[in-house]
Amino acid sequence: MDTNDASTTGRWDGLLLGASLATLDGDGYGEIGDGALAWRDGLLAYVGPRAELPGDPATLADEVIEARGWVTPGLVDCHTHLVFAGDRAREFEMRLQGASYEDIARAGGGIVSTVRAVRAADEAGLLRQSLPRARALLADGATTLEIKSGYGLDFDNERKMLRVARQVGAELGIDVRTTYLAAHALPPEFKDRPDAYIDAVIDWLPRLHGEGLVDAVDAFCEGIGFSPEQTRRVFEAARGLGLPVKLHADQLSDLGGAGLVAEFGGLSADHVEHTSTDSVRAMAASGAVAVLLPGAFHVLRETKLPPLDAFREHGVPMAVATDCNPGTSPLLSMRQAMQLACTHFRLTPEEALRGATVHAARALGLADRGVLRAGMRADFACWDIGHPSELGYWLGGRLATAVHIGGRRLA
Amino acid sequence: MDTNDASTTGRWDGLLLGASLATLDGDGYGEIGDGALAWRDGLLAYVGPRAELPGDPATLADEVIEARGWVTPGLVDCHTHLVFAGDRAREFEMRLQGASYEDIARAGGGIVSTVRAVRAADEAGLLRQSLPRARALLADGATTLEIKSGYGLDFDNERKMLRVARQVGAELGIDVRTTYLAAHALPPEFKDRPDAYIDAVIDWLPRLHGEGLVDAVDAFCEGIGFSPEQTRRVFEAARGLGLPVKLHADQLSDLGGAGLVAEFGGLSADHVEHTSTDSVRAMAASGAVAVLLPGAFHVLRETKLPPLDAFREHGVPMAVATDCNPGTSPLLSMRQAMQLACTHFRLTPEEALRGATVHAARALGLADRGVLRAGMRADFACWDIGHPSELGYWLGGRLATAVHIGGRRLA
Ligand SMILES: [Zn+2]
Ligand SMILES: [Zn+2]
Repeated sequence: MDTNDASTTGRWDGLLLGASLATLDGDGYGEIGDGALAWRDGLLAYVGPRAELPGDPATLADEVIEARGWVTPGLVDCHTHLVFAGDRAREFEMRLQGASYEDIARAGGGIVSTVRAVRAADEAGLLRQSLPRARALLADGATTLEIKSGYGLDFDNERKMLRVARQVGAELGIDVRTTYLAAHALPPEFKDRPDAYIDAVIDWLPRLHGEGLVDAVDAFCEGIGFSPEQTRRVFEAARGLGLPVKLHADQLSDLGGAGLVAEFGGLSADHVEHTSTDSVRAMAASGAVAVLLPGAFHVLRETKLPPLDAFREHGVPMAVATDCNPGTSPLLSMRQAMQLACTHFRLTPEEALRGATVHAARALGLADRGVLRAGMRADFACWDIGHPSELGYWLGGRLATAVHIGGRRLA
Repeated sequence: MDTNDASTTGRWDGLLLGASLATLDGDGYGEIGDGALAWRDGLLAYVGPRAELPGDPATLADEVIEARGWVTPGLVDCHTHLVFAGDRAREFEMRLQGASYEDIARAGGGIVSTVRAVRAADEAGLLRQSLPRARALLADGATTLEIKSGYGLDFDNERKMLRVARQVGAELGIDVRTTYLAAHALPPEFKDRPDAYIDAVIDWLPRLHGEGLVDAVDAFCEGIGFSPEQTRRVFEAARGLGLPVKLHADQLSDLGGAGLVAEFGGLSADHVEHTSTDSVRAMAASGAVAVLLPGAFHVLRETKLPPLDAFREHGVPMAVATDCNPGTSPLLSMRQAMQLACTHFRLTPEEALRGATVHAARALGLADRGVLRAGMRADFACWDIGHPSELGYWLGGRLATAVHIGGRRLA
């Protein structure tokens, strides 16, 4: 139904008038000054100038909405760990009081504290704790969320996390894509036996996939995580099931993780601060997306920038995501991720917005969203702003005036 | 009425139960686990454990509110330029596209673009553009706002800004403190004649003060602003009228601005990245507050930290503020200012919260707010958090569930 003509297929469900559109279709913002946006059956049916509507608005749609400001595609948060229990604000405080990582570990902090809290929570409790974070992201314009497992680290608890991720989507009416990240950290039961743990991770995957809980497979490839060889084994298991892969790659050192993603035709390499030019070339050739996570960069006060110019030069699309997690990236807003990407990584606001829409959708393998174009999903956000560059500019504030998913207004 | 006993003076107007309190009264957060908070005639009448209430809650107050999470004093934003017209998001974008300050000035950007927009706006338009920013700050817990002039730079337009600042307060029911900052930049009419402009600034002050528009006097003391000698002349004029002073001091270089504040017994020295130990000592002796503005530090990617350890060692109170302005600090949330203070300046979340309440009130010369204590103003915010350290931890999200000013719920 890639058509801009209502007459061929009947009345539209909804028609939004009065706002400017940033379609992100093609180069630049894809600005349409006095725009009109219509949808039917959850898909966009008209995206264009109001003046070119094929008739009187009142006759064209069941509902006509008068808006103002700007409309953008719904934001796509393509990297989150937002299903977790407990919080780590006290640990944040201890660090700022001068506590070392050892002190924090001795006080029961660190990722193991999140693993403990997730294991202790039941599904209802985990859902109750996770929903406010998903609601916050939705309220600030996000219409698609990726959510990773990785704090359960055994079969039942990884399963619980993925089930809760699906429930977040069902509860809010927001599209949730799940990623299996059992290879996130070594659980205490497997102390000093990482290869045996990887065996278990590979063993659990088909069972969880069989329950429809896995959309993609991820791992933490790092000196303090899993080796490239262990990561490769996880990726091979994913490939055997036809599941796409992505990777926490090259955040603290260059282990060639981004290159491994490229070798497996993966969706994205995420973090990528230390990615080499060779890996950038391989990503470009394979079509992998570089997912920038400026929240962790900010909180950890990192200084090593991702190879941004190399990504630009070689045409590797750059996505931006919150990385929402309790330890290193307590971000509850895609706009704040965009602002940090502009400030810390010197992305332009346009690159940041493209990274939060078009490129983020691609990092999830989704071709049906991320731009405003007839035929795409009717996922869009309305903003009380004078220009789309403001989305990467303000810190704080309540700029989203409405958020629609599949045409339905959800915030 | 510094009493915790309702019986002596009749029923309370309101009583809040079910939340924990971070009173900030004394050392630490001043935590009260299962707290109760009551007010009458706009002032707090009871702050303490629920268990020690002098009777059955229903008999004690006209209205009983069941809350949860935490209650803190209302946040005090002691340094903003939130009354302005136009925006500078496009300029932010140009800078990130590689434009130099010259390019931007040639394209009509920079502070002169804000001055032009403010001069062009009428009072109603300036109010309309400024209100959403004040509303955003209020919605995220701010109950007192300082607002500076400084984009008018002539008598009529400085007056217009100060009048609009007062109108923001009247419109929202929020307490606004105005600061006269005509010595912010040299207007085009006075090109190359800064001393003549300072004469004019000094000439306008008593007239505006006579209209009740000035609560304090400020200047921008910097190589690219006004000299210490020019600042001194402004301060002397303020002293002649009995008005307190504060200063944009030592942001980009050490001109001794913070020392000048101390010499005049001023309320605060703001920015203070380059403040010397001698000036810190002078501030300690005079009782001046150091106002930290991490938003500008963040956006300008500064690296020179304020002398935080010296402030701590000498007992100079550190406040935190948004510096909300279109050029260098597009912050619409005190929580985000606190998060940036924790990340960039390594304040603990407790220091940041104290800086956003007790010390910020002191930076405005206000002794009736900033802590939860019987007899203080009933300005408080309710938060959906598990611990007050979360206020300096999250970026984004909607954590404030209610904001009360003088007992009245305003957000
Ligand atoms: Zn992650
Ligand atoms: Zn300022």
